[in-house]
Amino acid sequence: MTDKPSVLRDTDDEARKLARTLLRSARSAALAVLEPGENGFPFVSRALIGIDIDGTPVILISKLSTHTQALTLDNRCSLLVGEIGKGDPLAHARMTVQCLAEKVERDDTRHLRLRERFLRRHPKAELYVDFPDFAFFRLTPQRASLNGGFGRAYALDGPDLMITSPAIADLVAMEGRAIDHMNSDHADAATRYAQTFCKATEEGWTITGIDAAGLDLSLGDKLKRLEFEQPLQSAAELRPLLVRLYG
Amino acid sequence: MTDKPSVLRDTDDEARKLARTLLRSARSAALAVLEPGENGFPFVSRALIGIDIDGTPVILISKLSTHTQALTLDNRCSLLVGEIGKGDPLAHARMTVQCLAEKVERDDTRHLRLRERFLRRHPKAELYVDFPDFAFFRLTPQRASLNGGFGRAYALDGPDLMITSPAIADLVAMEGRAIDHMNSDHADAATRYAQTFCKATEEGWTITGIDAAGLDLSLGDKLKRLEFEQPLQSAAELRPLLVRLYG
Repeated sequence: MTDKPSVLRDTDDEARKLARTLLRSARSAALAVLEPGENGFPFVSRALIGIDIDGTPVILISKLSTHTQALTLDNRCSLLVGEIGKGDPLAHARMTVQCLAEKVERDDTRHLRLRERFLRRHPKAELYVDFPDFAFFRLTPQRASLNGGFGRAYALDGPDLMITSPAIADLVAMEGRAIDHMNSDHADAATRYAQTFCKATEEGWTITGIDAAGLDLSLGDKLKRLEFEQPLQSAAELRPLLVRLYG
Repeated sequence: MTDKPSVLRDTDDEARKLARTLLRSARSAALAVLEPGENGFPFVSRALIGIDIDGTPVILISKLSTHTQALTLDNRCSLLVGEIGKGDPLAHARMTVQCLAEKVERDDTRHLRLRERFLRRHPKAELYVDFPDFAFFRLTPQRASLNGGFGRAYALDGPDLMITSPAIADLVAMEGRAIDHMNSDHADAATRYAQTFCKATEEGWTITGIDAAGLDLSLGDKLKRLEFEQPLQSAAELRPLLVRLYG
């Protein structure tokens, strides 16, 4: 029972929120590409996942890897997100996202923010992020298939997984400082957000990402996603929202 | 760093044992196929994994699923096994197995043993295993890529993952009874095996599979694989081996 004999449900806001939360809280994913030199044989392995400020999933891979070689020849790929917890692996929500990959060169204006956002989420990647054979790829979602557990299947469009807001440019400019400020001067806020909105029980959470649609919260190897009710329409809305969520 | 900029190591017996253990202890896997009607777009989702008596991985999927439709059109597929534990997802061993899928019909002589072996490992599948739209597929490994953690990459051939022994036919005939006997009359044995050979700490393990190359041990949602030093050459070797392993 891989895919439920699918009676697709109508895709509603709750399903979209689950889909976004699954993708944006994924530390890693299974990534399927077409194996180079094998006439289109599918090939799946594991990759660390980052998320760009507009919601696009991002990977950091070496030129020497099967993935880079594959995506250079055919940029179509498929991501599986949703970690297996206890119990039946098929009872846990997971999502397949069909994407088109685009390499982001180092002189691309988006490179700096990708690098910073990725390293805040995966600090150990600092060890190799600047190696000359490594590069970021943005994986733009084309469509997705969400399985929220037995009998809860939904089809999503690529834009359902993206973040659109006039605030994005301003948020890019201020994200790093806002995170530093929150984690230093309001060090308990991330833990309160994680406990209040993300079912966390531990102390010690920090903010690792702020975008127009929500917050990324980290504790060691754990990652939680707090989705705002509505995306911010201006960067000026961030501060009052963070105060309100603090309660 | 999806695939390590791969300096492949020589594939030795230790690597083969790790590969077999990873595959045979997997409860589920990411399964990549080619999406039907999408001109070869890769598509990855999650499937429960069983193992046939000869080591072949097995899935149980519905005719209505993307997987069945895909594999009916093109039987090439890719499995990713190796669960993510704590810490860096890329520090954990995982393996990509390139397979060719073959549907096993209900009147096939192999169907009964596949069904029994699968249900011992996944008892909840009893709910749907006999639905008319569900079928087993054997996924015969063609080659594999093992990543044992940073800098430990190995290439394997399909036969490295298979179990070959003249004892297989006799083991098929006796497996169910042997398991019942061990779990009823020597109920502590599975726990002792799991603790002695598989780093388990809990009590309450049971045996869910016996083949020429080892034992499958289950406790709730957990699955461990005990690989014998050498495959059994006759079914008569099983009993003395189980006694010796009990210590």
